[in-house]
Amino acid sequence: MQWSANTTSGISTEKTNSPDTDLMDTTQIYDPTDTICAIATAQGTGAIAVCRLSGPAALTLADEVWRGKPLSTVSSHTVHLGYIVDPDTDDTLDQAVATTFRAPNSFTGDDTVEFAIHGSRWIQRRLIALLCRHGARPALPGEYTRRAFASGRMDLAEAEAVADLIAASSEASHRLAMTQMRGDYSRRLNELRDQLLELSALLELELDFSEEDVEFASRERLRALADTLHHDLDALARSFDAGQAIKDGIPVAITGPTNAGKSSLLNALLGDDRAIVSDIHGTTRDIVEDTLEIGPYLLRLKDTAGLRHTTDTIENLGIERSLKAAANAAIVLYVVDAAQTTLPDCDHPEKTIFIVNKADITDPAATTTRLRDAHPGATIVALSAKTGLGLDTLRAEIRSRADALTDSGATADYTVTNARHAAELAAAATAAAAVSRGLATALPPDLIAQDLRQTIHHLGAVTGRITTPEILQTIFERFCIGK
Amino acid sequence: MQWSANTTSGISTEKTNSPDTDLMDTTQIYDPTDTICAIATAQGTGAIAVCRLSGPAALTLADEVWRGKPLSTVSSHTVHLGYIVDPDTDDTLDQAVATTFRAPNSFTGDDTVEFAIHGSRWIQRRLIALLCRHGARPALPGEYTRRAFASGRMDLAEAEAVADLIAASSEASHRLAMTQMRGDYSRRLNELRDQLLELSALLELELDFSEEDVEFASRERLRALADTLHHDLDALARSFDAGQAIKDGIPVAITGPTNAGKSSLLNALLGDDRAIVSDIHGTTRDIVEDTLEIGPYLLRLKDTAGLRHTTDTIENLGIERSLKAAANAAIVLYVVDAAQTTLPDCDHPEKTIFIVNKADITDPAATTTRLRDAHPGATIVALSAKTGLGLDTLRAEIRSRADALTDSGATADYTVTNARHAAELAAAATAAAAVSRGLATALPPDLIAQDLRQTIHHLGAVTGRITTPEILQTIFERFCIGK
Repeated sequence: MQWSANTTSGISTEKTNSPDTDLMDTTQIYDPTDTICAIATAQGTGAIAVCRLSGPAALTLADEVWRGKPLSTVSSHTVHLGYIVDPDTDDTLDQAVATTFRAPNSFTGDDTVEFAIHGSRWIQRRLIALLCRHGARPALPGEYTRRAFASGRMDLAEAEAVADLIAASSEASHRLAMTQMRGDYSRRLNELRDQLLELSALLELELDFSEEDVEFASRERLRALADTLHHDLDALARSFDAGQAIKDGIPVAITGPTNAGKSSLLNALLGDDRAIVSDIHGTTRDIVEDTLEIGPYLLRLKDTAGLRHTTDTIENLGIERSLKAAANAAIVLYVVDAAQTTLPDCDHPEKTIFIVNKADITDPAATTTRLRDAHPGATIVALSAKTGLGLDTLRAEIRSRADALTDSGATADYTVTNARHAAELAAAATAAAAVSRGLATALPPDLIAQDLRQTIHHLGAVTGRITTPEILQTIFERFCIGK
Repeated sequence: MQWSANTTSGISTEKTNSPDTDLMDTTQIYDPTDTICAIATAQGTGAIAVCRLSGPAALTLADEVWRGKPLSTVSSHTVHLGYIVDPDTDDTLDQAVATTFRAPNSFTGDDTVEFAIHGSRWIQRRLIALLCRHGARPALPGEYTRRAFASGRMDLAEAEAVADLIAASSEASHRLAMTQMRGDYSRRLNELRDQLLELSALLELELDFSEEDVEFASRERLRALADTLHHDLDALARSFDAGQAIKDGIPVAITGPTNAGKSSLLNALLGDDRAIVSDIHGTTRDIVEDTLEIGPYLLRLKDTAGLRHTTDTIENLGIERSLKAAANAAIVLYVVDAAQTTLPDCDHPEKTIFIVNKADITDPAATTTRLRDAHPGATIVALSAKTGLGLDTLRAEIRSRADALTDSGATADYTVTNARHAAELAAAATAAAAVSRGLATALPPDLIAQDLRQTIHHLGAVTGRITTPEILQTIFERFCIGK
């Protein structure tokens, strides 16, 4: 993802006859007969790097630069030690291990050679340049996965999950992507599609015999089926909010006056977990302050610092601004000083955890009891950011909020994490609702059938039964090169 | 190299029973019976990452977390698609491709499994943690290569070349490392060793029969052999200066008064080559200003800016400072304004290229002719940093200087790039000189034999025939983890 630009600029510095990928029009027509190559491992220097060469000419092209057992003669799924040599100069580029995958038993479905080379950036660049001089071209972002889709090795939802899996930075987001990539989600969508097709068949039957006024399937049964389908599609579409929180991280705002110990709470929360703070690419520091893993969840902690107590007016303005930020958060941590006798009003009590800080210098039990009596129903955690007292309780509370939040999509079998899928599923649900209404109001079967076709169409767009080149372009260009 | 620290801290955030590599004493006793694991590809997110598991238990350990054809039953050098599953929770971590290498036909000589996994950092971290829970331990820096050396898969010079190969950032440095890794260099050293052993045998023979006053080999022949060996060892040791320049980059100082156009020359040189400016790790910006590739060479351009013309005294001080920096450079680019009628004096005329800048606003031919007449023997290039006129001439001149510089080690068959080797070879050359002298002065054969044993000892230390655990520790800890 984030390294595609650098990789291509790395390639472009080679003086080769290959197309310059920096100048390459990435909207170019996708040509599945090209043999493509790319470094598939992360950018930079490592012990080894892996270069993938895939396409109809992969084996013969590889043999042009390979000194070892000819790869076009070996079995699929075998590994061979040899040298990569520039045949024009006889210069040895590297000692390497080549793995062969013969069509159709490869990731893309095409013949594929993977070279494991020494991981210097220099060797990586030169190998790509060498392969391009011999007829390969640099792969476009996501082109390997796009070929896997085109050859029927995976459907579109599974292909999209590959990108999600690579980007996953928490257990929960990883699990969702894994479920989707393994096809469980696609199977569920295909089940729904089968039921829609059954409904369609029953309706068509009625349509054919409508003039004879015979009801083959009971309208009641059809309605019940349509209602269930509408409900399932709607639940799937609605699971997207939870899915997005899991995939991108759950937004958590820390708010409250500065002197309540908000900054030290942030430090305390990050403290012993600092090492697993993950860098989420594409997220700028001024939006996300820091990230934190609790259990399987990735949390995006947003510090709403900046409140000052110079005058009441400014304080109120500050609190207003802080609460505005809190409005966009899924969980709000509102820090108050233990000396406070009442909790402030806040706009989102249901998602707020009040944190009574500086519990080390007051009697935390007495304070929280007093506050709980004054504010029944409020979640109050006594805490000392200084000593760490109460931190585990706070973590457990955040964890249970995150569980509840991600369970809100639990009426669906699967959690949708992809905005495109959510939009298609929402459209499918709307069309399914029209089917239900049509059946309830005895609409003519041909009109109902039209809504039903709409439902099937939108559902098919998720798994790629229905696609356009433009949709595919949009989907795969967000992949990294090499995938 | 630079990513070892981050990789281990990634591992340490996992709550596993594995030893925490952050706290791991890297001077710990190297235990060749452990099964070790590490991510071998560059740190970060990529389409795929490769995890290496190597050691006596690699295959059975891999099978504990593998759902697919049992890896302990498959042939060496075969590739298998399957799933990595945590057997305790039954959670699928990833769909992966496993490659098996059976002892002794692996890089380390031990049983090895390489898992190609999806390249999310999360999956990488979790896989290492999972393997460590099942009995592997994180590999130490260079431990794979150290095992390859220990199992006799490569000698020490070849093993050290692996690290050099990965770090190589120019064609010339890559070629040297490749030559060394392929064993050509080791073969040459072993030839020298064989000749020394022959000399030794002849001397021993003489020693055995010395009381009978019989000369079995003519002293003349022995002397000629010793002289040749001394010469070859000395040439190898001396090639290190050139080798270092190739490996680390050739130091080039740009000097001259600021208003001569020095900065624009730097920009012009870097201009269209900016993309291949390499980041050399461990080199701080205040030492190296920028790097540039010309032909096969990496050049380290050091800008000696900071000269000001406020008064003559300050200018002289500035020039002095600039010339001091130039003293450490292999090539000095001295920029003068085209309006100058004479060249300034400089301390290193033999390594200086005078650049007459602003050739676009003067008559460059007239200026250079005038200056060449005034300074016969000086290298003068007329150039316009603004229009690019003369840049190619300058590049060609720098290239030929670099050729000459690296050819200064050309009396040796190979160019030594490793400081440890250079020191051992220098010591061997010194001992060989003593052998020559001993033979010339009719020293008793047993004393000569002692010098000869010293020569053989130092030569053996290069390829690892003679090592200590401390030497091995020092050599391999500079490797990256995963190699």
